[in-house]
Amino acid sequence: MRIGVVAPSTPIRAEVAERVAAIAAESFPEAELVFHPQCFLAYGHFAGDDRVRAAAFADYACDSGFDAIWFARGGYGSCRIAEEVIEQLAGNAAARDKTYLGYSDAGFVLAGLYRAGFPHIVHGPMANELRREGGEAAVRRSLAWLVRRDAGALEPGLGSDPVAAFNITVLSQLLGTSLQPDLAGHVLLLEDVSEYMYSIDRSMFHITSNPGIRRIAGIRLGRVSNVPVNEPDFGADEEQVVRYWCARAGIAYQGAADVGHDSANKVVPFGRADPG
Amino acid sequence: MRIGVVAPSTPIRAEVAERVAAIAAESFPEAELVFHPQCFLAYGHFAGDDRVRAAAFADYACDSGFDAIWFARGGYGSCRIAEEVIEQLAGNAAARDKTYLGYSDAGFVLAGLYRAGFPHIVHGPMANELRREGGEAAVRRSLAWLVRRDAGALEPGLGSDPVAAFNITVLSQLLGTSLQPDLAGHVLLLEDVSEYMYSIDRSMFHITSNPGIRRIAGIRLGRVSNVPVNEPDFGADEEQVVRYWCARAGIAYQGAADVGHDSANKVVPFGRADPG
Repeated sequence: MRIGVVAPSTPIRAEVAERVAAIAAESFPEAELVFHPQCFLAYGHFAGDDRVRAAAFADYACDSGFDAIWFARGGYGSCRIAEEVIEQLAGNAAARDKTYLGYSDAGFVLAGLYRAGFPHIVHGPMANELRREGGEAAVRRSLAWLVRRDAGALEPGLGSDPVAAFNITVLSQLLGTSLQPDLAGHVLLLEDVSEYMYSIDRSMFHITSNPGIRRIAGIRLGRVSNVPVNEPDFGADEEQVVRYWCARAGIAYQGAADVGHDSANKVVPFGRADPG
Repeated sequence: MRIGVVAPSTPIRAEVAERVAAIAAESFPEAELVFHPQCFLAYGHFAGDDRVRAAAFADYACDSGFDAIWFARGGYGSCRIAEEVIEQLAGNAAARDKTYLGYSDAGFVLAGLYRAGFPHIVHGPMANELRREGGEAAVRRSLAWLVRRDAGALEPGLGSDPVAAFNITVLSQLLGTSLQPDLAGHVLLLEDVSEYMYSIDRSMFHITSNPGIRRIAGIRLGRVSNVPVNEPDFGADEEQVVRYWCARAGIAYQGAADVGHDSANKVVPFGRADPG
């Protein structure tokens, strides 16, 4: 199988790509990993300007020579190209058949593809995760799912309900846009990083006040890490915050989830459990 | 006239209230300023817990002995009580007749009241603004509007179109909730503070992608101040960001606005220009 790596948000370094490719070659020899040259471009904050990033994504996604698209890295930027890319992919059979794996900022694109009915949308570690402490395990986990559908890569609490996983801030910022998917009946796994606790609280107000979100089956909370110190202290931790807003909105709080901005972040295929 | 001051978000210090009251007594002797004791409470991040803040707001808003409600301070927290407070105020004639003045986090409540048809909703400096450099002028400006409807307090570019003013992040976070007002045909004045430029960009994606917002007449941009440094630099300033998203959404960009988190922040009465 062939996996195309693209960077709709921010760039990665060539040496990171080389090390990820070496891990893939060694441990998953049946797979070929192809990094689009766009992954290494820098245009201000972004891995190339909007046009270049959109073209690279559509280029690989619509190419029947690839079986999966792996997001190189998050950061910020995929909302700038998501709508255009999804329009291009929507009518393309090669694009629809693929698996798309990423998380964090990639959630804008994953959400829009899931809304458009793409069947293989997956939350999981990205290539640039290699740079984290323990990041090699994260990279292997996503490859194990992409290449072998290895159930050991999966978040351990997935049940019979359909699921979706999002960064709290990213989900908040796509509500009401053309990217918002119908998550009725889904268990929603949430995580975030580097946001003030008051910002998490505000995002949870926004998320749990959305009529579409109120039709979900429940929320499970992953890690909320690297929360900046605030004076005075917010007075509640992320679990208290999420429980508070779930209670107000009549949404079931279903406990912890093993997802987050860290090397332990597990794989979550959107929709119903599907080993194939 | 009597002005009630409440703090639906974060507390102010008693000595700030005393100094603001002294300015009012000296320069606007026809007005009486009454700070609700709730303004000085501290409950973690907030000026009292949700129940206490909501009760204080409704207490003064529904009291026919007050002509106006002035927000003591922004920060964060009014979204936690906005829905409940507005439900209580909606059927109360004394509440409906009042002027409500604040901005920033207060925007959650102002938005909901405007949606509920309250006629005198006003963006402008709050009592705690006194602590800013030049803050006394900001305090006098709001009092001049509240007490005398002094046109010199108004944002100088207000025309014949109805207007509304919001903090970018706050507006973004109330879209799709029960607080979102109908802004069709309005010129929208926007400002923000202490947000990364990528976060401003993401919020503008969210705002300009909202179907309700796409019916506005245009956007004018106030100050976006104290933007944290990011590596790499975002590569665009706030005007470029707002122009970009306006162009994508087919919204007219109408230039600068004299609003922001600073002592020059001007008064913007929501709706059509109304000197009385």
